[in-house]
Amino acid sequence: MSKVILKDLAKALNVSISTVGRALSDSHEIGVETKKKVMQMAAEMGYNPNPYAGSLRSRKSKTIAIIVPELNNNFFIQAISGAESIAQEQDYHILIYVTNDIFEKEVSILNDLQNGRVDGVIMSLSATTTTFKHITDLIETGVNVVFFDRICHEIETAKIITDDFTSGFKATEHLIENKCKNIAFFAISDKLSIDNKRKQGYFEALTKYDLPIKNDIIANCIGNENDNFNTIKKILKTNKTIDGIFCTVEKLSLTTYHVCNELGIKIPNKIKIISFSNLTTAPLLNPSLTTITQPAFEMGMHAATLLFKHLSRKKSLIHNENIIMKSKLFIRESTTSQ
Amino acid sequence: MSKVILKDLAKALNVSISTVGRALSDSHEIGVETKKKVMQMAAEMGYNPNPYAGSLRSRKSKTIAIIVPELNNNFFIQAISGAESIAQEQDYHILIYVTNDIFEKEVSILNDLQNGRVDGVIMSLSATTTTFKHITDLIETGVNVVFFDRICHEIETAKIITDDFTSGFKATEHLIENKCKNIAFFAISDKLSIDNKRKQGYFEALTKYDLPIKNDIIANCIGNENDNFNTIKKILKTNKTIDGIFCTVEKLSLTTYHVCNELGIKIPNKIKIISFSNLTTAPLLNPSLTTITQPAFEMGMHAATLLFKHLSRKKSLIHNENIIMKSKLFIRESTTSQ
Repeated sequence: MSKVILKDLAKALNVSISTVGRALSDSHEIGVETKKKVMQMAAEMGYNPNPYAGSLRSRKSKTIAIIVPELNNNFFIQAISGAESIAQEQDYHILIYVTNDIFEKEVSILNDLQNGRVDGVIMSLSATTTTFKHITDLIETGVNVVFFDRICHEIETAKIITDDFTSGFKATEHLIENKCKNIAFFAISDKLSIDNKRKQGYFEALTKYDLPIKNDIIANCIGNENDNFNTIKKILKTNKTIDGIFCTVEKLSLTTYHVCNELGIKIPNKIKIISFSNLTTAPLLNPSLTTITQPAFEMGMHAATLLFKHLSRKKSLIHNENIIMKSKLFIRESTTSQ
Repeated sequence: MSKVILKDLAKALNVSISTVGRALSDSHEIGVETKKKVMQMAAEMGYNPNPYAGSLRSRKSKTIAIIVPELNNNFFIQAISGAESIAQEQDYHILIYVTNDIFEKEVSILNDLQNGRVDGVIMSLSATTTTFKHITDLIETGVNVVFFDRICHEIETAKIITDDFTSGFKATEHLIENKCKNIAFFAISDKLSIDNKRKQGYFEALTKYDLPIKNDIIANCIGNENDNFNTIKKILKTNKTIDGIFCTVEKLSLTTYHVCNELGIKIPNKIKIISFSNLTTAPLLNPSLTTITQPAFEMGMHAATLLFKHLSRKKSLIHNENIIMKSKLFIRESTTSQ
């Protein structure tokens, strides 16, 4: 069975296509009797209105986009699930986009969204994003944007974040309390809000405990897995006194585990490791990984709830605010003596 | 700046909205001079055509959907990435939908897609799906469907699968070669094509090596994590002679690890474990997990390539065929003596 379209209805009723279209969209230009006939024929022939025609009338796509830097990261998977649980309730569709941490891809995605494909956007910045015109341009077309986790301070809208400074401080303090004196810091970018806050917390803890800040054991690992492996390997080979490592993202802790395995460095005996992570296998790793875990699912829910509240109210701007949620420390074998 | 819409252009040009609309869609009913004026004004005022209007004209949404049972599974994440890499090349958007293995949700998603939102669908069935009318209904509206991994034999279209029978046989044989004689089999459903093929391979290997098939150590774990934990715990407590476990999906191997930890069962000394899995942390687990790994990224690429080839050719039906790709065995500590 091929799809029944407006043309088929018009032919069957011997009226123009625009009459059928206007009748179905309840236009005042069409009489009640004609509308009734069109509706009946549409029902009889199994006509299924194209949602995009409806979108044109209502100016609502009933779709939101969620833009994340990577899918191979449990934090983002859980955040998407949280947003999805709310979207489903609201009978909305979610378009999931992945930037792979590439600025140009982020720009291209946002430009594509300028033309009414979605009513709103929930996003977390790519690690290579340093300018924000593509985002302000999108907002100017009337699409609301809510940030989560990797936010842009410069843009006035709602931002769902976690207590990154405090968590960075606590992670470092936890290593210091477990006798670490030379703590390396591995992040993915010196451009990202989250990495910078976590680093400030790291600096603050070192200062509090009178430990020196050493730039040669602070690294940004923005490359692919192989590049990052080599960066971390070089640092661990050159700085034999490193006894603690703080990773700001999950994947760097896994790469660090692989490097330690290759170099025969025992965790936690020689080096203790703590990482921001929502990895479900963290308790099953060898050794189990101590993590700072963000409330990812709740952050996604919160971002979506805020966006929908706004969409239903038809206000033109979302209030500028930071909503700060708490991360949690899970102490496991990688930072404690066995 | 609010969005410039057709109405604004009509007002500025002092013509009707339908004139503007028809001029922009290059209708033969509108003169060349008028078209030129409308185009110029549209450019001046920064008018950005709604893609859905374009979709109505061309009857193409430039969007495909990928429907997966769960996101918290590296197999599906990698398959999505593979499909995404092809979609990007083709300048298509991907809608990602998650059924959470719930039949009703799958039905609801497919019904929503009947109205032209997407040009094609790549899907892997929910574990609770036993009837397929929602899928044939969608195909009848002209939307092409390509299956991957969890397929439906009854529907005539392309299906990207792996050599599940052979892999199931090899996984079981690998345990037998490592001296296992009482091998439990944990799947998520007796309805799924993949679970059944893998189970047939398991039966075949047991038969080849003259080992008995014991129904009380064969389980379907379709519940939530907690339910599955209890199911597996009960089996391991009741059947003390189990010395090998074959899990058909990644998450069951992790649950099995947790159960073994709680019961103090040593892997691989007391029980050896092999699992279908694309888990990136498999080599880092305690002990590292022996896996049968599917070419997930390639399967996603293949499914998308096939779908796009078809969409560009405007054929009405995709040829019925099974495309079988090979999985790979990665032997690690969980099945070998330490």
